[in-house]
Amino acid sequence: MGLFTSDIKTMNDLFVHQLQDIYYAEQQILKALPKMIDKATDSQLKTGFESHLRETEGHVQRLEQVFKMHGAEAKGATCPAIDGIIKEANEVAGEVADKNVLDAALLASAQAVEHYEMTRYGTLIAWAKELGRPDCASVLEQNLQEEKAADAKLTSIAESRVNRMAA
Amino acid sequence: MGLFTSDIKTMNDLFVHQLQDIYYAEQQILKALPKMIDKATDSQLKTGFESHLRETEGHVQRLEQVFKMHGAEAKGATCPAIDGIIKEANEVAGEVADKNVLDAALLASAQAVEHYEMTRYGTLIAWAKELGRPDCASVLEQNLQEEKAADAKLTSIAESRVNRMAA
Repeated sequence: MGLFTSDIKTMNDLFVHQLQDIYYAEQQILKALPKMIDKATDSQLKTGFESHLRETEGHVQRLEQVFKMHGAEAKGATCPAIDGIIKEANEVAGEVADKNVLDAALLASAQAVEHYEMTRYGTLIAWAKELGRPDCASVLEQNLQEEKAADAKLTSIAESRVNRMAA
Repeated sequence: MGLFTSDIKTMNDLFVHQLQDIYYAEQQILKALPKMIDKATDSQLKTGFESHLRETEGHVQRLEQVFKMHGAEAKGATCPAIDGIIKEANEVAGEVADKNVLDAALLASAQAVEHYEMTRYGTLIAWAKELGRPDCASVLEQNLQEEKAADAKLTSIAESRVNRMAA
């Protein structure tokens, strides 16, 4: 169990709590991605999810590195936001039979996940700088850049899907 | 009650379900923002939230316009993602006494909300185009642009906060 929100008093507490939040989120994403790979029918989408699964393993390791650099234990704190995003993804994709509609739903869910991560890493980087930890900020920046690239790739897959359907 | 996810069979169903999802989300944000305005201590942040509250009222109206244009009834569908994001915002900001830490937490929560909306509007715009509804896409685009501008403004408030704290 991570830091209780009632224990947050300082910017350092807030930073560590947010690290625990994204650490939990990355682990939930690690569990969700294999199911999304199974469901995806578009080969570009499947490949995209597979490469993001490998990247996500790297994100967890970088987070463990930041915990260590900051002298905090690597723990997850339950994150209702990512739980809600994944719950919604499962609900929407759960019962769609049409392959095209299913791929569209999976793409949208994956982009919602990416945006959640982008906003959290953006915040963590700002707080690391505020706390005088540019070294932690720089490791977190690598995760942020990969999330942004993953989102841009999903947008390009979504656009080529839309163009194909409209043709 | 909006469209059940088990009823999603076509791209049109998916589009209408996602419209209902963001319609519900905007309404939850309308309820959450006054509490965030009350809690915020930084005057720039308070003003930013106030102007975004007025924008959010406009977003709800534009969504009602899109429902009408598309011949669908304006209804909300419970959105576990925004519920999770708001729950987390309340938990984190709920018990922070230090004004600076509280403002930092509120800023981060607001950016998580903006990113959720940005990803959903981006998806809706792509799907509207796929469904041959550039007219709906263009109304949704106005909401997206305002969410992006709101997020950029929050980033600039966050940066000036961090610079002030580091000084």
